[in-house]
Amino acid sequence: MAHSKTELLKKMSVNPWFATLPLAERKAMLAVAVVQPLAVGESVYRKGDVSGGFYGVLSGLLRVSATGEDGREGILSVLEPGNWFGETTLLDGQTRPHDVTAMQEGEVLVITAADFKRLMRRLGFAHGMTTLLCARVRGLYGLIEDTMLRSTRMRVARRLITLAKGDMTMAAQTRQGVQVSHEELAMMLGVTRQTLAKELKYFVREGALALGYGHIDFLDTALLRHEAALD
Amino acid sequence: MAHSKTELLKKMSVNPWFATLPLAERKAMLAVAVVQPLAVGESVYRKGDVSGGFYGVLSGLLRVSATGEDGREGILSVLEPGNWFGETTLLDGQTRPHDVTAMQEGEVLVITAADFKRLMRRLGFAHGMTTLLCARVRGLYGLIEDTMLRSTRMRVARRLITLAKGDMTMAAQTRQGVQVSHEELAMMLGVTRQTLAKELKYFVREGALALGYGHIDFLDTALLRHEAALD
Repeated sequence: MAHSKTELLKKMSVNPWFATLPLAERKAMLAVAVVQPLAVGESVYRKGDVSGGFYGVLSGLLRVSATGEDGREGILSVLEPGNWFGETTLLDGQTRPHDVTAMQEGEVLVITAADFKRLMRRLGFAHGMTTLLCARVRGLYGLIEDTMLRSTRMRVARRLITLAKGDMTMAAQTRQGVQVSHEELAMMLGVTRQTLAKELKYFVREGALALGYGHIDFLDTALLRHEAALD
Repeated sequence: MAHSKTELLKKMSVNPWFATLPLAERKAMLAVAVVQPLAVGESVYRKGDVSGGFYGVLSGLLRVSATGEDGREGILSVLEPGNWFGETTLLDGQTRPHDVTAMQEGEVLVITAADFKRLMRRLGFAHGMTTLLCARVRGLYGLIEDTMLRSTRMRVARRLITLAKGDMTMAAQTRQGVQVSHEELAMMLGVTRQTLAKELKYFVREGALALGYGHIDFLDTALLRHEAALD
């Protein structure tokens, strides 16, 4: 599908990070970005890769994941439209730290490594990279704190609320539910499906959640926020 | 204690991130940095603070920690001489994401928020901030992967090796031991002291570790790396 630059600018500005970048930087990025279609299950890059560029999600949903030595897979985050990713390897020259895979058919914007390097000569863009990385650092600290300091029940509530905010996209509004399977949610929390099922059942019994196939609806967001200790 | 700029430059360049910054950027930083002494237990900043600057550890040891709703404390990382920290709040204008406290008497270099803002007008310094943040992002992804995908035994081995490398300071060489109490190590892993004791006993029995008061020595680093699946 062909997209005009104006349309791309509008579409990508749903993301608060991108929306608050100076317009000149957003335009400079989109001027060199190329649209690439993604099939379901298609890999954008794999852990250990050195190639590839900087990406923006135009449509679809991508999974950031890692696999342990025993084959166990963990989902680190979910990338929805508006998200940009892949800057770390371009900035520090080390290998890709994880896998990124399309969970749905979609499209990404690709900025090549060479164009990214040219963009980094712009002070405004370099500043933008620091705020993007700060958002990642804060999101990751939050996840680590949750695993260190909080009960499974509290972690389930917090992960659902974070997902409803567009995961690490820092969306302005919390949606009233999330598109996620129980298996995916368990993989995000690093717990078994049995452990997760027990906690979800509790939230259903309390009237906070309704479980659907591939989605979880929030019936009482205030209660969920209370369980998450976010009040 | 008075320090000459040459001495500071040499001392701080033990840190690989700082050492690989262009000399002009390192000199620009040190030109505005002021030495501040720290007493044991003194707080540099607390979660939620908006004030303060960008800091470099000149001597001593600092703890980056967070406290849960129930008072449980988790240690996110340990900062040793050469480390710089505190950039996130200065870059994104949000509050401090955790507590930083002196574990020993020491000294930090302080760059005020106003001076930091001026440094950020330099492209080389802004680039430096992106690589510092990339190192944090990689370190944090590693910790999350460990909690999601790996056994407690493997996590103990990996955390000890990371600590021996100067935690997130990316030191070039792995030391032959770490200065850490069992309580601190348990707080880093988010496990009980009992769980940790069981795993440490295993490593002692296998001849990989020797336990001392406030320190753990590596007797067989190859074996420890093997248990950590780092071979």
